[in-house]
Amino acid sequence: MEERSNPELYAIRHSLAHVLAQAVQQQFSGVTLGFGPPTETGFYYDFDFRGRSVSEKDFPAIEKGMRRIIQEKQVYNRTDCSFEEALAKAETLGEPYKVMNIKMLKERGVQHFSFYSNDKFEDLCEGPHVSDTGVLPAKAFKLDRVAGAYWLGDERNIMLTRIYALAFETEEELKDFLRRREIAETYDHKKLGKELGIFHFDDLVGKGLPLWLPAGTVIRDEVETYAKEMEFKAGYQRVSTPNIAKKQLYLMSKHLPAYEDSMFPPMICHHEDTGYEEHFYLRPMNCPHHHLIFKSVQRSYRDLPLRLAEYGTTFRYEQSGELSGLLRVRGMTLNDAHLYLRLEQVGEEVRQMLGMYMAMYKTFKFQDYRFRLSLRDPDGAGKYQGSREMWEKAESMLTKLMDGTGLPYQKGVGEAAFYGPKIDIQFKNLMGREETVSTIQLDFLAPENFDLHYTDEDGKDQRPVVIHRAPLSTHERFVSYLLEYYGGALPTWLSPVQVVLIPVNEDCHDFCEDLAEHLHGKFVRAELDFSHESFNKKIRTHTLKKVPLLLIIGNKEVQEDSVTVRRFGVKEQQTLKRGVFVAELLEEIRERKNFREPITSIV
Amino acid sequence: MEERSNPELYAIRHSLAHVLAQAVQQQFSGVTLGFGPPTETGFYYDFDFRGRSVSEKDFPAIEKGMRRIIQEKQVYNRTDCSFEEALAKAETLGEPYKVMNIKMLKERGVQHFSFYSNDKFEDLCEGPHVSDTGVLPAKAFKLDRVAGAYWLGDERNIMLTRIYALAFETEEELKDFLRRREIAETYDHKKLGKELGIFHFDDLVGKGLPLWLPAGTVIRDEVETYAKEMEFKAGYQRVSTPNIAKKQLYLMSKHLPAYEDSMFPPMICHHEDTGYEEHFYLRPMNCPHHHLIFKSVQRSYRDLPLRLAEYGTTFRYEQSGELSGLLRVRGMTLNDAHLYLRLEQVGEEVRQMLGMYMAMYKTFKFQDYRFRLSLRDPDGAGKYQGSREMWEKAESMLTKLMDGTGLPYQKGVGEAAFYGPKIDIQFKNLMGREETVSTIQLDFLAPENFDLHYTDEDGKDQRPVVIHRAPLSTHERFVSYLLEYYGGALPTWLSPVQVVLIPVNEDCHDFCEDLAEHLHGKFVRAELDFSHESFNKKIRTHTLKKVPLLLIIGNKEVQEDSVTVRRFGVKEQQTLKRGVFVAELLEEIRERKNFREPITSIV
Repeated sequence: MEERSNPELYAIRHSLAHVLAQAVQQQFSGVTLGFGPPTETGFYYDFDFRGRSVSEKDFPAIEKGMRRIIQEKQVYNRTDCSFEEALAKAETLGEPYKVMNIKMLKERGVQHFSFYSNDKFEDLCEGPHVSDTGVLPAKAFKLDRVAGAYWLGDERNIMLTRIYALAFETEEELKDFLRRREIAETYDHKKLGKELGIFHFDDLVGKGLPLWLPAGTVIRDEVETYAKEMEFKAGYQRVSTPNIAKKQLYLMSKHLPAYEDSMFPPMICHHEDTGYEEHFYLRPMNCPHHHLIFKSVQRSYRDLPLRLAEYGTTFRYEQSGELSGLLRVRGMTLNDAHLYLRLEQVGEEVRQMLGMYMAMYKTFKFQDYRFRLSLRDPDGAGKYQGSREMWEKAESMLTKLMDGTGLPYQKGVGEAAFYGPKIDIQFKNLMGREETVSTIQLDFLAPENFDLHYTDEDGKDQRPVVIHRAPLSTHERFVSYLLEYYGGALPTWLSPVQVVLIPVNEDCHDFCEDLAEHLHGKFVRAELDFSHESFNKKIRTHTLKKVPLLLIIGNKEVQEDSVTVRRFGVKEQQTLKRGVFVAELLEEIRERKNFREPITSIV
Repeated sequence: MEERSNPELYAIRHSLAHVLAQAVQQQFSGVTLGFGPPTETGFYYDFDFRGRSVSEKDFPAIEKGMRRIIQEKQVYNRTDCSFEEALAKAETLGEPYKVMNIKMLKERGVQHFSFYSNDKFEDLCEGPHVSDTGVLPAKAFKLDRVAGAYWLGDERNIMLTRIYALAFETEEELKDFLRRREIAETYDHKKLGKELGIFHFDDLVGKGLPLWLPAGTVIRDEVETYAKEMEFKAGYQRVSTPNIAKKQLYLMSKHLPAYEDSMFPPMICHHEDTGYEEHFYLRPMNCPHHHLIFKSVQRSYRDLPLRLAEYGTTFRYEQSGELSGLLRVRGMTLNDAHLYLRLEQVGEEVRQMLGMYMAMYKTFKFQDYRFRLSLRDPDGAGKYQGSREMWEKAESMLTKLMDGTGLPYQKGVGEAAFYGPKIDIQFKNLMGREETVSTIQLDFLAPENFDLHYTDEDGKDQRPVVIHRAPLSTHERFVSYLLEYYGGALPTWLSPVQVVLIPVNEDCHDFCEDLAEHLHGKFVRAELDFSHESFNKKIRTHTLKKVPLLLIIGNKEVQEDSVTVRRFGVKEQQTLKRGVFVAELLEEIRERKNFREPITSIV
């Protein structure tokens, strides 16, 4: 949580953390304290319960103790002190972790310390706090869960008990958060992924390496086809490159040794006859391969901008504790492209690129996103690669461009990468947390590392600028985002099963078969449900699977050559002539029409 | 060369090899002899020239010497002898390599040796030979090239000089071969790949790991889209799986250790905290991943046949000497699918599968292929996996099926894999050599290794049968085959550039731009040539690139809203109304019409 964004809430959460510690120590004698900071949604405190176990069953009693402290309107007092005084105080309080912390702070150069007290409770603390516990919102906090947490986050240390709590300024905000979280859990992509048969992990393959099941592969393929169409129209050329390369490539790209920890270890081929060793790596990024394609022939200014696109598979050796569903994986396929262009072309190219991004977002009905233009720190000269002139030109082009679009955006001064400025597009997930889904990244360094050049009008060698871009992120991240955004109820064009035909009785089977075959011939993902389940059970089953269109076929429909359409999430059924329905369906799919409402709108 | 297929030609080539050795020894004193066998297209002989160099410049003189020997009608005489006699003879002849060879043969258990002599020349030889040199076709052979060759193929040995020769029964056959070879060289996929910008190899990535350039990626993508459409219509479901997996998977699949030599070495992840090691391998085949997907949920008889398709990328560590363009690579992407079905379903499923194969071949205009049904060796009981009953049922189903199709096919008794019978489809390349492009492979072993099962109607667990199939081979092999088959002049739907618009003068630019934009919007790969080259130069450039359609736009065309179409390989131009042309073009692409004639037809 950023302290500056809402200092009042920060102080509330911080003070509530103290109140939690105070209440716990009142109820459990001898418990000592670790750290207890505010978080994005509340706060936590780490306790050493000295072997006693504590669980959610203890929460009501602790919360009651906290509310009593709030009722007592205990005033916060600050005491400033020196290292020696702080140490003595922590020892008197019988708090060994505070003692350790004070010593660590001293080692890091801290000389002034402070404690905050209220009633008999006192804690090492920088502040700030509210004036007294009476101003704390007694109904806007809630103890949430218990977890183990190693002291200092190091698994060689003792494991403390962390109590997480939620806290907001008002009860309504807390309730709203809880409601949103419940929805988010219902629509968690890991849960949906299992229910809808999207992906599967298998220990024989390895952690963080998803096997995409048929339903998930449909979504990937549809997203990919869409991206390819948009890229074709925008003049991109597709390439396809191996997802391994020799060590030498990653020495040139400088991924080695800087990035080695995030890469899988090498495959080492021994050549016994020559004693020669070849090291092959799984690639962590696609760019080096694309740079080699740029270099594979002599390029002229007439070739620029050269736009090389690839849905390229890359691998990163994430720590196994950090792996989570499709969101954090070890193998991923990125909607990648690299553009090679003259500095003067950057403005116009990025303008067109943003147009493509916005068009894509519109197709997916994304609304809650914002742009951030990340620029140099003007005091950071020397820190940045590329000439000052280059930076100034690029930054002024991008600023002028962003101003020209009329899009609201923030400037992130000092947030540029050391190799170039960038535009990040931030999305909010269901819980309101922001993630960078798309970027547009200028790169002044790669052209140097790879010695990229083109011949200008005068026959002279020039360095191009490189742009990395990926509007639709990786399949893994993007599909998980889509699943959560729509709560699994994807638009028809993206749905693994688009239409299920349900006959009311056996007399209608022929009609259903004939229509299903016709639709299948048009590449519609249509299925028949001829099972012996009851009609209502069938409707329920396919609704749980969030199939966008159910066709109910009874005798009347057969006689009138029509279909009764039940659209997911829409109460009214509609009966249409068969031909009209088919034409509308094909258009809906072809035009990627989107009748689905994102889950955020019901939050 | 198979001796049995044409024993006369074998004897001719074998005898000519002796004549070559004889002529060389007449001209270069002190030269000693290695091996000199017939080949598929002639013969070679290995010589130790003792440091002297020999080149193609020496060929006319050597050939002259050979023809003189032929004119002299020297009679071949055979001498049979014991090991000691053979050794003595070779030593007397001053042939150290023959001495070594005799000793090696002895070690391998050979007891009877023979020599063939004509005039003063004598050579260790099993025969057979022609009666005398006079019957050898003096005009049907030709020395071809010189190469280095290690004695016994071992690079630790001395390098001998190998002279390759072509030899046929008649002069016409030799001429025909030379003509075909010239065409094959012109249309060699490595040459075309460079000219047309199909693929590129880079040492920084590694040998045998192609980077597909934009033109090549178009072909891959089009082939892939076509395969996906055909597979969708045939009820296949696509999956997408990681191209690495843990060692445990390849122990289960039995790739390890049996197949280890053909795999890249493992990536070994050390977990320092636990001391645990994880070994990841690049996958050599896609099947194990698919089997895990089959196993990921409980399967019922209602799910069968389950057809899982993936254009899956695999890696094999081929010896670097064996790598050749796209034909033999270390990374490849296979048009793969695995079917899981009951034994009784095999016949009907394979029948439908063959229907898909034939439809695909028709689209590509493949004609010169043949089927081989590979069955058990009836005497090989115990060698084969799966019950005798299973084999009998499967073989009888496949035989009945092949008989029923009316397709000509051969039975390969004893050529089944140990894990199941198969159908191979053999294609002839430009040089008439056969390759297996597609297979349909039954597998009784994988279901055991992976303990695959489904629940039958009675709720009992049953083993499915697995079929591996790949009609369109790997992208690497298939695209190289397509390039050679069409000499680079691909059908419009596969062509990297489909249409080039060439204005006759600047007044026609707007019309061209407008039309190009319209075509581009319909996903046609259309390009404008507004360069300052002459009209004829432009036509030549795009014809060399084998662009299927050139549109010539002059004032008349602009006035009449028409285009003049020049189709590659067709002399007559055609002027069409713009709308008619566009409609015909879109249909040609959509329907994958194929006006191109394969190169084989002009051979």
